[in-house]
Amino acid sequence: MTHDFDLFVQTAHSLADVAGTVIRPYFRSTIGALDKSDASPVTIADRMAERVMRAQLAELHPDHAVLGEEFGLHEGTSRYQWTLDPIDGTRAFITGRPTFGTLISLSHDGVPIIGVIDQPVTGERWIGVTGRPTLFRDDLVASDFQPLTTRKRASLSEADLSCTSLEMLEDAPRPNWKTLKAQVKRMSWGGDCYAYGLLAAGHIDIIAECAMKPWDWSALVPVVEGAGGRVTDWGGERLRIGSDGTVLAVGNPALLDAAVACLRS
Amino acid sequence: MTHDFDLFVQTAHSLADVAGTVIRPYFRSTIGALDKSDASPVTIADRMAERVMRAQLAELHPDHAVLGEEFGLHEGTSRYQWTLDPIDGTRAFITGRPTFGTLISLSHDGVPIIGVIDQPVTGERWIGVTGRPTLFRDDLVASDFQPLTTRKRASLSEADLSCTSLEMLEDAPRPNWKTLKAQVKRMSWGGDCYAYGLLAAGHIDIIAECAMKPWDWSALVPVVEGAGGRVTDWGGERLRIGSDGTVLAVGNPALLDAAVACLRS
Repeated sequence: MTHDFDLFVQTAHSLADVAGTVIRPYFRSTIGALDKSDASPVTIADRMAERVMRAQLAELHPDHAVLGEEFGLHEGTSRYQWTLDPIDGTRAFITGRPTFGTLISLSHDGVPIIGVIDQPVTGERWIGVTGRPTLFRDDLVASDFQPLTTRKRASLSEADLSCTSLEMLEDAPRPNWKTLKAQVKRMSWGGDCYAYGLLAAGHIDIIAECAMKPWDWSALVPVVEGAGGRVTDWGGERLRIGSDGTVLAVGNPALLDAAVACLRS
Repeated sequence: MTHDFDLFVQTAHSLADVAGTVIRPYFRSTIGALDKSDASPVTIADRMAERVMRAQLAELHPDHAVLGEEFGLHEGTSRYQWTLDPIDGTRAFITGRPTFGTLISLSHDGVPIIGVIDQPVTGERWIGVTGRPTLFRDDLVASDFQPLTTRKRASLSEADLSCTSLEMLEDAPRPNWKTLKAQVKRMSWGGDCYAYGLLAAGHIDIIAECAMKPWDWSALVPVVEGAGGRVTDWGGERLRIGSDGTVLAVGNPALLDAAVACLRS
């Protein structure tokens, strides 16, 4: 199947642009956070950004399905689905850290084919498209979209491991992240989707997380894999709807087996 | 004693400016990290930034002492001492996170009277001066220096707690951070000195860390206290040379006793 990638990439950028425009005024402002039923923090910006992205999609691709963290699934009449997480990293957002991100992905028959990680405050944006090199606009350092690649550390003992929070790992179905941690060079904390962007850019080697929903991981797959890395679950299997929520990303695919051996032991 | 704050503040900004100029080109570049004897990561940028700050101080204040993380103590002939940590948060720096910072402080008879937290990539800078409101230049959102204040959450149960890493807490002289964590609303990870800036700006309520050296904490005290918060050790005592390395910062001084009760129990 041939996809109209140029059109869809244009849509993806447009969605990220409008989400960022909505989100930026709320960053470090004093609006109150609402609590959802699952007690995760979520802001007005989160809901409004998803609404404006859905409004754009209704106009541009009325036949596509849309799944968003805030407003659930809108069924489509085609095999394409957009998956949206307006603010991934709500704790980071609420505490004023510019390391949250807007996640946008397009799937075909359930397989992610386009992914965007956008940081609307710093102006950083990653876009991955199946079969193309991942592009990164690093507004902190340079301002054009450039291809990037993961770095290829040869062993776990040379690897930088990252995870967003201890709480996430304490919820893991298996406690073996400590085995992985004991094997790597060092560990750092925080980052949410932003850390996957840093892995794609060659600054982090491994990320092990869990309790991840499809809107948390679907945009990450094209970004990381288009940069030469791999994203699987903790068993080394491709992520799919119904996966157990564990996510393992490696910059060097040759590290996958060793990381999986730690996590499944 | 009357201090020439206008002159010293000008020096502090000048030191942060030159350190940032040296550090920026190395952020997300592929220079190798050297390992110090204690195996903490440290980059060429770290050493070079401390050298250029020391060079400035030798010209501007040849009678002042200088203590830096990289090159130790240079004795002075006055009661003033500059304390420098060119890159606080080397793990953040190495993994491409723009949440490290340059720390600069001036002490008189061992008491910090000026503190700067500078994030040279985003252009954010906090400056605290004894007896004055802390100023913040938030280049991500606005670009002038503005006074800021901590927020005053009334109880631990409403408080956002932050810590840079689990490894830091595992090194704590007392394991009671888990007691504090169980009392607060939620916890977030990462941030190093940047998190203290976010606390001063009213986005985080409590930070509990340990294994902190004087160059890690001396700049934080004027920044946080000038914004209305408090910085002590985990026993609630003022930080001083010879403290046990624990640091507790609260946005609302009224929360100090409750936090100390958790940490010392």
